[in-house]
Amino acid sequence: MNMAGTVSRDGLVSGEEMHSFARLLFPICRSLTGDGVRQSLKLIQELLPELTVHEVPSGTQTFDWTVPDEWNIRTAYIEDPSGKRIVDFATHNLHVVGYSTPVDTTLTLDELQHHLHSLPDRPDVIPYVTSYYKRDWGFCLTHALRKTLTPGNYRVVIDADLAPGSMTYGDLVIPGTSTDEVLFSTYICHPSMANNELSGPVVATFLAQWISSVDRHYTYRFVFVPETIGTVVYLSKLLDHLKRHVRAGFVMTCCGDEGPFSFMPSRTGLTYADKIARRVLSRHKPDFVSYSFLQRGSDERQYCSPLVDLPVASVMRSKYHVYPEYHTSADDLNFVTAKGLNETLAIYAEMVATIERNELYTAVVHGEPQLGKRGLYPNTGGQVDQGAVSATVDLLAFADGTNDLEDIAQLTGHDQTTLERLARVLVQHGLLTTTRLRD
Amino acid sequence: MNMAGTVSRDGLVSGEEMHSFARLLFPICRSLTGDGVRQSLKLIQELLPELTVHEVPSGTQTFDWTVPDEWNIRTAYIEDPSGKRIVDFATHNLHVVGYSTPVDTTLTLDELQHHLHSLPDRPDVIPYVTSYYKRDWGFCLTHALRKTLTPGNYRVVIDADLAPGSMTYGDLVIPGTSTDEVLFSTYICHPSMANNELSGPVVATFLAQWISSVDRHYTYRFVFVPETIGTVVYLSKLLDHLKRHVRAGFVMTCCGDEGPFSFMPSRTGLTYADKIARRVLSRHKPDFVSYSFLQRGSDERQYCSPLVDLPVASVMRSKYHVYPEYHTSADDLNFVTAKGLNETLAIYAEMVATIERNELYTAVVHGEPQLGKRGLYPNTGGQVDQGAVSATVDLLAFADGTNDLEDIAQLTGHDQTTLERLARVLVQHGLLTTTRLRD
Amino acid sequence: MNMAGTVSRDGLVSGEEMHSFARLLFPICRSLTGDGVRQSLKLIQELLPELTVHEVPSGTQTFDWTVPDEWNIRTAYIEDPSGKRIVDFATHNLHVVGYSTPVDTTLTLDELQHHLHSLPDRPDVIPYVTSYYKRDWGFCLTHALRKTLTPGNYRVVIDADLAPGSMTYGDLVIPGTSTDEVLFSTYICHPSMANNELSGPVVATFLAQWISSVDRHYTYRFVFVPETIGTVVYLSKLLDHLKRHVRAGFVMTCCGDEGPFSFMPSRTGLTYADKIARRVLSRHKPDFVSYSFLQRGSDERQYCSPLVDLPVASVMRSKYHVYPEYHTSADDLNFVTAKGLNETLAIYAEMVATIERNELYTAVVHGEPQLGKRGLYPNTGGQVDQGAVSATVDLLAFADGTNDLEDIAQLTGHDQTTLERLARVLVQHGLLTTTRLRD
Repeated sequence: MNMAGTVSRDGLVSGEEMHSFARLLFPICRSLTGDGVRQSLKLIQELLPELTVHEVPSGTQTFDWTVPDEWNIRTAYIEDPSGKRIVDFATHNLHVVGYSTPVDTTLTLDELQHHLHSLPDRPDVIPYVTSYYKRDWGFCLTHALRKTLTPGNYRVVIDADLAPGSMTYGDLVIPGTSTDEVLFSTYICHPSMANNELSGPVVATFLAQWISSVDRHYTYRFVFVPETIGTVVYLSKLLDHLKRHVRAGFVMTCCGDEGPFSFMPSRTGLTYADKIARRVLSRHKPDFVSYSFLQRGSDERQYCSPLVDLPVASVMRSKYHVYPEYHTSADDLNFVTAKGLNETLAIYAEMVATIERNELYTAVVHGEPQLGKRGLYPNTGGQVDQGAVSATVDLLAFADGTNDLEDIAQLTGHDQTTLERLARVLVQHGLLTTTRLRD
Repeated sequence: MNMAGTVSRDGLVSGEEMHSFARLLFPICRSLTGDGVRQSLKLIQELLPELTVHEVPSGTQTFDWTVPDEWNIRTAYIEDPSGKRIVDFATHNLHVVGYSTPVDTTLTLDELQHHLHSLPDRPDVIPYVTSYYKRDWGFCLTHALRKTLTPGNYRVVIDADLAPGSMTYGDLVIPGTSTDEVLFSTYICHPSMANNELSGPVVATFLAQWISSVDRHYTYRFVFVPETIGTVVYLSKLLDHLKRHVRAGFVMTCCGDEGPFSFMPSRTGLTYADKIARRVLSRHKPDFVSYSFLQRGSDERQYCSPLVDLPVASVMRSKYHVYPEYHTSADDLNFVTAKGLNETLAIYAEMVATIERNELYTAVVHGEPQLGKRGLYPNTGGQVDQGAVSATVDLLAFADGTNDLEDIAQLTGHDQTTLERLARVLVQHGLLTTTRLRD
Repeated sequence: MNMAGTVSRDGLVSGEEMHSFARLLFPICRSLTGDGVRQSLKLIQELLPELTVHEVPSGTQTFDWTVPDEWNIRTAYIEDPSGKRIVDFATHNLHVVGYSTPVDTTLTLDELQHHLHSLPDRPDVIPYVTSYYKRDWGFCLTHALRKTLTPGNYRVVIDADLAPGSMTYGDLVIPGTSTDEVLFSTYICHPSMANNELSGPVVATFLAQWISSVDRHYTYRFVFVPETIGTVVYLSKLLDHLKRHVRAGFVMTCCGDEGPFSFMPSRTGLTYADKIARRVLSRHKPDFVSYSFLQRGSDERQYCSPLVDLPVASVMRSKYHVYPEYHTSADDLNFVTAKGLNETLAIYAEMVATIERNELYTAVVHGEPQLGKRGLYPNTGGQVDQGAVSATVDLLAFADGTNDLEDIAQLTGHDQTTLERLARVLVQHGLLTTTRLRD
């Protein structure tokens, strides 16, 4: 078994395998609740057998929210005046407004228009629309199609249940040596869209699989929840535990396209999660885009709210709201690629590895140790080449118990890989000790 | 009754009314002590009946100072060799050096010159000169007149008493809901000059009158004292109380001309008074001049001394020492205008309003509240217009108990007026609570 | 007896006297141990009779180090194939690698080359080479000479002892009123080189002599030790005491050439020693070179190591490693000059004086004191010249118990000499009190 913090990430699955898993999940009609979520979690469980699935009854009060009724849809379509099915849920589940109430009626075109959603300036895509908390029904279609509709009577059918049931979510705790936790949270409430949001659960699944396969110091918690309401429920159940144990957390969303990496800080931008994310992105994806917390839009809204205040940031590819395909049928499995998924998984694995290997260093002996007697120092004096040993003595000089190797690299200008190698030697020789970081 | 913090300042008196009150006070010969101060405080009492007048006997020891003898002057003049009264206290009370000892004698011009004060480079104005702590006498006159004096015998008469008596000052406490206090301090020891210093007591009087007329949270303390010695006496009597209760204080001086506003910080520049003054001036008078504490020259010298160290700043128009009319007969009721007085009163009232409405905000629920169920949120999902609700969610996100609305406006970039409106709604809905600021 | 903090440094010895003392010490062959160190300390004792000489047996364990065997050398030479002594320890003690083991043999030129050290790009100087911790022997010579060597048999003789004995160091404590200490540390392990290192012990000797001759508040500790191992031994013996008492310390090295002054900060750069050194250099040698702690190379490596962490900086002329004469025979008594030594002594004396006179000021009375009644203030009011008294009132205003006069000078812009004069007057009048600085 490999150490998460020290081995290469060659054990990571390929982007193709992730893309193939995404294709399996893509057609399922997920929403805040319902069988689509259950079906998706079941497929994830095949890869992560330890994933626990929870059901929370509709009507459950939780912080400021109430778990909604459960929504399940079987068929939905519009027939034009000639009886032709021009819009059909069976062809794309974005065609129905999420949480639409059942309907089976005939309307004039004018009446129907009140229930149609399209994007005039993007006439070829179907928009994603929901009406979670207000009872309503509707259809989404391309604007191109909508413009062809002629007056007449249209039959609309939505065969759906919206009734008390339960909300489903999953979580997985991968225990480590320490009870300190690293949290990954992603959401599973979106129907057939690929970047926002299948890429998050997909990358989270394979990240969890990889973490399970390596030795680790920290405990890792993966949370697959419906956005907002699911996160609020999860926090309401576990807030005390999470506040005691979570050292860093990340919201995983928009993980699969090939756009530049995006960083969404926590509210303060000063947590350990922010530090790790900035470190790894700066080194491996130096062209990453750094957003303000004011531009947030996902579950960091819950994790970073004042009374919750967990150390949670978000690392994404193209950020929600920013890329044109967002929340439309164009956010599909062409937009999300094996390459994009693969790179994002690698960055998340690198963040895990960085956290795993992150240790504070403290010098053991007073003054400088005698490097020469250990063969760690050019032992002929006089015109000593200070450069050759300066990394060692600088490492020892700044190992005052508050710095990790990245800090020491920044303080001294020495390459961190060099410092890591030297630190291992010095630890072997009993000249350095390390402690794990706690906030 | 209006709330100080929430209503427009339309209830403020007009500049004309203040200017008219200034004209009433102007001719009175005030000094550190004497009937001029008593007469002035009596006129103020007609507007502020609750003002208490205190007498402190000459010789009273107080911190490092001793209350001086009381000075009262009846007549004073110089007769030229022909017997003509060329300088007469009756025409302008600046003609006599403040605290002049009595004299009735005849002198040669050479002898007389030692007792004359004029300004060669401002030949048409009478300078303001005092000799509080060294017994002396003298006359002030325009340099133009002085140059016309010809050799001969001059009769000089100063009919004055300088003898044990008392020093007079006034104060007024306008109680609020809280025992926390806001202090306004001005001085009443200057003879016939208008900006420095009648404008301070005049604006203070009408500010107090306005505050008395509105609902208020804080307690307001107005202090009308002779500069320096009066302030030292006041501090020596009330220091413990003031240190416990005063949250912000302001020295009111030079309040009546039409020059740009001036800001004199406290010693540290970091007190709540500094914050409020900078806020109000930045918003309403963005061209205000910010001075260094090194350029101080009024009672902040006492209030901000190391062992006193109260949170006291000063908001002025043209600052003492800076404008050419300062401490001369040119600082008159043409230099001070109704418009100038009016604007300054409005700024002080705005500072009061800002303090009154200043509250720290704390979110009530964990995570984001469900705005939709309260009609506070566009309740159709999908292509939500985040801009429309971002002010609300940002307000909630930064309501962590350390920020007031101005802070949140700065942190989020949202307009403060918008935030105030939203905060009221959120407080009504029980989603936000507020606490009053304490240092 | 003069006060160290208040008198001019006219009592300092001349540079010529220091240079003459350096000439006396120069020829002695010092090393980490041995009679050269003892002889040098004996000569220093003639000037500093209170200097205590300590012996630490070879083999003593101390922190991470072991005191090495003692090395004493009598003669050493190389004879060329013709029997001519071409390299002779008697002509320059740099000719022998420090800590060379005894040898008496005949070698071919090829074999000999493995034991020769020269500098190809500085062909006219003898390099300084040691082999303290690995048993070896060797000769150093000019590259010019080395190039003339022809094949043949060379006799090499090193008549030296390397055997258990002891390491020698000296220290001197000059008691003051306070048990708070200022530390000066210099090293005495270098053979015939002048700037690095005779200048350190020489300037330290005369600095100690001067301090002994003046009144002083602080206790001064002078340490003359072999570099690194001597410092480690000294720290191991006295660390607790030093950590309790040392307020500031300085490593004295490279003190005698005429290059610009150099400043080596402590690890944090924030100690009192750093502050004093920066202050004095900024004022008196504004063109000083400020190095990074990363460029350190002397005993600050021990004093500033994480577990020792004493407030120790270093003030030098041309820094070790930087000047081309460093660690060669060119670092001689032409490179070190009377002028250079003199200037460095003056700067160290100025640092002592600065520490001695450094006090925190606190105002005694509440509010501003009445300067007029004490004759400290122009006592005619009106057109008062604020400039004339602003230094006094500013000094009082910022005398809040956290500022010394340099701080107040910086805060107020007033000249520090003026403030010192005013502070003395105010202290006399009971208006200011002073306390000594503690970290």
